[in-house]
Amino acid sequence: MSPTTAKTPDVSRRSERSRQAILRASMELVGEVGYPKLTIEAIAARAGVGKQTIYRWWPSKAAVLLDACTDAATGDGHDSGLPDTGDVEADLKTVLRATADEFSDPAFEAPYRALAVAAAADAELAEQFLVRLREPGLQAYTRRLRAGQEAGQIDPDLDLGLAVEILLGPFQQRWLNRSGPLTHEFADSLVELAMRAFTPRP
Amino acid sequence: MSPTTAKTPDVSRRSERSRQAILRASMELVGEVGYPKLTIEAIAARAGVGKQTIYRWWPSKAAVLLDACTDAATGDGHDSGLPDTGDVEADLKTVLRATADEFSDPAFEAPYRALAVAAAADAELAEQFLVRLREPGLQAYTRRLRAGQEAGQIDPDLDLGLAVEILLGPFQQRWLNRSGPLTHEFADSLVELAMRAFTPRP
Repeated sequence: MSPTTAKTPDVSRRSERSRQAILRASMELVGEVGYPKLTIEAIAARAGVGKQTIYRWWPSKAAVLLDACTDAATGDGHDSGLPDTGDVEADLKTVLRATADEFSDPAFEAPYRALAVAAAADAELAEQFLVRLREPGLQAYTRRLRAGQEAGQIDPDLDLGLAVEILLGPFQQRWLNRSGPLTHEFADSLVELAMRAFTPRP
Repeated sequence: MSPTTAKTPDVSRRSERSRQAILRASMELVGEVGYPKLTIEAIAARAGVGKQTIYRWWPSKAAVLLDACTDAATGDGHDSGLPDTGDVEADLKTVLRATADEFSDPAFEAPYRALAVAAAADAELAEQFLVRLREPGLQAYTRRLRAGQEAGQIDPDLDLGLAVEILLGPFQQRWLNRSGPLTHEFADSLVELAMRAFTPRP
């Protein structure tokens, strides 16, 4: 760290507290007013910081929200990968059930939906949304399926990218379209049907 | 028809011309400015009608766009059902390839995306979007899969609702997230992988 960017521990702690307050405020507010009406001014007021503090660290409200959702997603172990108990079907169910619980929680769902909607409308944000929020999860699924291939539970010729799309696409569609409940039963049925396509051919 | 709502043929023709102009204008404009900036005033100006004409027939811009997208989707035979050549896999590929072509056409894609995005953000619009635009297509897929069950090509115990979600969810996810190309190759691969889950178990 160069001398000009070095900070005393007190300043760092204060910065981290402000950063957390800003991210939390952005998550709360986007759930309350929606993405189009979310403003940097309102985030600053809710977080108890000046709006220049926000502009110093983030170029836009999309960037704030992307950090907030990334923190929320990684905070609960998202990026540490899927469990591997040796039973790939059971592990996929465990993770998809947990995801169903997460998306049934308004505190998580509302900001994530706001960001997904904004990303669907904006190609540049879509790219960041994919790289920052979606791909770590997709890669974790891909790794678990690859381990399943090595264990002989998954067809060695399966296109793993397409397999992950078949597993997660129906979930996202139900969620974004509000076309059905995100229950454990749905998670289980989806994994069971997908696994019929994934298992080695006789 | 009551005497007060009866119209001469000339008036009806003029009304239908105005209606078509309004729907076309809404499709063009939403592709140019996006849904949030779409206004009834701009649609009226583009269509060459007074804005009261629009308000007489539609309660909101969402209602105009929903009619426009419904007309566009049914105009090309969407609601007439899927082909049934006797080969369910081939028929699913034919329809999903045609859908891929449709979503690669900006004139269709932009207004449909605008409406999907607006519906994802608004639970009430989501309901209308599902009933008017999505369900006729889902039911057509379900009917084709049921005919496949009767022909012995599809597992008789398959949950057809979930099957349609597995087939169309990955397509919608790629489209909304811009996470991959909507090509004929993708359509074919998706159908082939899904069919592995749909065929009767040995």
